[in-house]
This record gives sequence, structure tokens and C-alpha cells, in this order.
Amino acid sequence: MFADQLHAAQKGTDGRVCVGLDPHPEIVSGGPGRIVRFLGKVIAETKDEACVYKPNSAFFEALGARGAVALRRTIDRVHEAGRLAILDAKRGDIASTAAAYARAACDVLAADAITVVAYMGEDAVAPFQERGLAVFILTVPSNPTAIPLIDHGSPPLYGRVAELAARLGERFPGQVGLVVGATSPERARSLRGIGGSLPWLVPGVGAQGGELGAFLDAAGGARTLLFNVSRGILAADRPQEAARGFKEAMGRPNER
Amino acid sequence: MFADQLHAAQKGTDGRVCVGLDPHPEIVSGGPGRIVRFLGKVIAETKDEACVYKPNSAFFEALGARGAVALRRTIDRVHEAGRLAILDAKRGDIASTAAAYARAACDVLAADAITVVAYMGEDAVAPFQERGLAVFILTVPSNPTAIPLIDHGSPPLYGRVAELAARLGERFPGQVGLVVGATSPERARSLRGIGGSLPWLVPGVGAQGGELGAFLDAAGGARTLLFNVSRGILAADRPQEAARGFKEAMGRPNER
Repeated sequence: MFADQLHAAQKGTDGRVCVGLDPHPEIVSGGPGRIVRFLGKVIAETKDEACVYKPNSAFFEALGARGAVALRRTIDRVHEAGRLAILDAKRGDIASTAAAYARAACDVLAADAITVVAYMGEDAVAPFQERGLAVFILTVPSNPTAIPLIDHGSPPLYGRVAELAARLGERFPGQVGLVVGATSPERARSLRGIGGSLPWLVPGVGAQGGELGAFLDAAGGARTLLFNVSRGILAADRPQEAARGFKEAMGRPNER
Repeated sequence: MFADQLHAAQKGTDGRVCVGLDPHPEIVSGGPGRIVRFLGKVIAETKDEACVYKPNSAFFEALGARGAVALRRTIDRVHEAGRLAILDAKRGDIASTAAAYARAACDVLAADAITVVAYMGEDAVAPFQERGLAVFILTVPSNPTAIPLIDHGSPPLYGRVAELAARLGERFPGQVGLVVGATSPERARSLRGIGGSLPWLVPGVGAQGGELGAFLDAAGGARTLLFNVSRGILAADRPQEAARGFKEAMGRPNER
């Protein structure tokens, strides 16, 4: 079960750090082979600090067919390090299309979990879980232009999305989480009562400047939190030290 | 300009048919080579009836690295037939990630347009247009489980998304359209006043059972409509005849 493996990884590293594997051309230049070597080195250096890794599909897709091979190899490196891989793909389609995305994520890429956008509702999520993947549903993004849409309505749309996640969490125990940006502690607070202890994947720390203290206070102590850092670790001179620094700042994992 | 090319293609075929290239394993079995040949044959047979093609990224991604090559080759076949290719990918991420998806769609795959999900707002759309692609923003999906979310709030969320499309249409003239499902004529009617004459890509005809007459009445005569048919043409014994039948049923293109 993904949630159990995640919890064990957090206990094992005594931390909540997710390393975002976003091989931006500014961070690592060159072809797919060079990128796999670069990321493999980062994974090997940070595996005692990071409980999970989040490869970003977009940067691999931009490399063409060889990018798909590089993405699979990168996920293999994550597994060789004894860690879980959340594919950041934000897929958002339904029915046989969603099932094909699930085959790609699961069978082709060997990911353990995937990020999805639920604009199309339950149909856009369940096919992944039916394939055995865990799903993190984009609920509160960390960018400002998302706000008018996610705050729309009363209760706000993001609350409705969290309720959808909660329903799916009951249907697929241990296979559902939410994406809740660190830049929105007040929205995080309003989600505390929804979905019990579903884990949250938290982007927006570091480069995007979320205030960690306010967020930790808002999230409460009852759930698994995964704080994603990408550039702050990938572009660091010493990735392990950088990851350790983030680990200290983010606090120890919760008991469940 | 995409909108002008689209209008010219509609005039040239005197029709509104978009052929969805969804190589579902039930429709075409075998590896990437066989799939490219199958789709290439469908494209060659239907190009006098179809003004545009919509390859579905998911089914190619499920084939692994060779799927990326097959997708590019399929888009090349579309262009060799003198037609435009809308990549159905429903991407929904921001900033440098969205820019990487845009590079994949534009530079790697040579698509002319892409479908996107705008849950993250303007940041999830503009990077594609900045790369020169046209964008169809998912506004009213054709599946029932989308309804509680897209109807949320007052005005409903889908209206807010259409307003976002309208704003982006002013910023990127000729590069913005909406996805509006044929299964929702009443919602389509409520969107008539938003975004002027932005084109609509309309899924849900045929297999999903949208009622075409009610939709045509609701959409009004002032915009470019693209009716997508996938299985109804791909799985037909005679794709050209099937496409011609849909073309007749869907009416002639509007003047602009």
C-alpha cells in the first residue's frame, strides 16, 4: 500500500523531504544520458535525507523519445535507492484515455504514484488507482493565477476538490493524497477537516517562497506531509547538505 | 495564424469534422509501426472530409519511447495530408513546466494546437501560446462526473473558465479556443456571449451520444465549430464514408 510505504520511508529518513526531479535546461544541460547521470547522482547523494522523489514528466517529454527512456531510468534509480517515485504529470482526462495514461505511468515508467487534475471529476482519477497507482489530486496550487478559479464559489472550488479526494480515499484506501501549496496556509487550514489523514504533497517551499512555519501550523499534526523542493536541491553545490537543511527546517514526520 | 488556417481547412472540406486519433488497443492492435500505418491510412482516406485531426497523446505514451516516435510520425501524416493537428494532451501545469510541455508539443511533436486544463489559471495556458501553439481550454467536458465541479458556484465555474479563455483570446488573437462537450447544449448556450467568436472543439458526438441538433441550435451561427469523432470513424469499415456521414450530419461551416 502506497501510504504505508510512504510512512515507512518518512520514518526511515526521519524527514518529510520530497526531491522534485525537474531537469530544467538551466540546471542540467546536455542530452538524456547526461540528465540521467546527473539525477542519478543527486538521488544517490540525497537518499538518506529524502523520503520520496518527484520526477517531472514535462522536462523528459521535451527531450523526445529518448526522454521517455531517461524518465524510466531515473525512476529505476529512485527505486534502486529504496525510495518511492511520484510522477508529476498532472494528467486530467477520462475513461479509456485516463486508463492509457495509467498504463504509461505504471507499466512503461514504473511510477508508484502520479499527480492528477480533477477538472473532469472522479472519472479523471479512478482509472489510475484501478491500475494500482496512488494519486495526488491537485487541490490548492501554489501559483497566484490559480486563485480566482480555486476560490470560486462557496464553499470554494478547492474544498469541493478535497471532498472528491476524500470520497476517493474511502474507495481506494492508501492510494489518495492531495496537492496543497505551501503558499496558502489559510486554505490549508480550511482543509484540515476534509479527508481525515490523507497525505498532502506540498509544493511551493523554497523557490516559490512559501512560509513554512505558518503552513505547518495550519496543516496540523494529523497527516503525512511531503514538502517538495526541486531547484533548491538540484541546483545546490552540495545536494545532500541542501536536502539535510530542508529536512531540518520541515520538521519530523507525524505519527499516524 | 491557427484560426485562419482552421477556417480555411473548414472551407476547403466544406465541413466541421475533426477526426480523433485515439489508437485504442481494441481498435488497432500491435506495435507503434502498425499503429502509424493504420492511422496514416485513416488520414489519407478521410482528408477530404475532415478539416483537422486530434491525436490523443495518452495512447501513444502507453507505447513507451517508440510511442513518442509514432506520435510524431502520425502528426507528420496529418501535415502531409494538408491538415492541422490538435494534440489532445490536456496538460495542466505552470511556468517552466508548462514551457517544457510546450517544447514537447511544438518542437518534438510539431503539433499546431494542444488541449489544456486551466485549473492553475492563466499560467497553465499562456506558455503554449508564447511558443506559437494554439490552445483549446477544457471548459465543458462531456462526461457526467465533471458536472458537480464545472457547475460549482454562481456563475458556474465553466463560465469563469470561458472568461479566462476570452481574456487570453484578446492577448493571443487566433490562438485560443474552448472545449465544449456536445452533451451539454444548455451550458453551450450560456457561453454564447463569452469570448466572441472563439472556436469550439466539441467532443461527445457519436460514441458519447451527444444530441447534435440541440447543440447546433445552442451554439449559434457565429463561431467555428469542430466536432470530434474518434471511434465512429477509426473503427468504421469504411472510414471515408463514415467521415462523410458525420460531415453531412454536422452541417456546413459558418462564415466568420
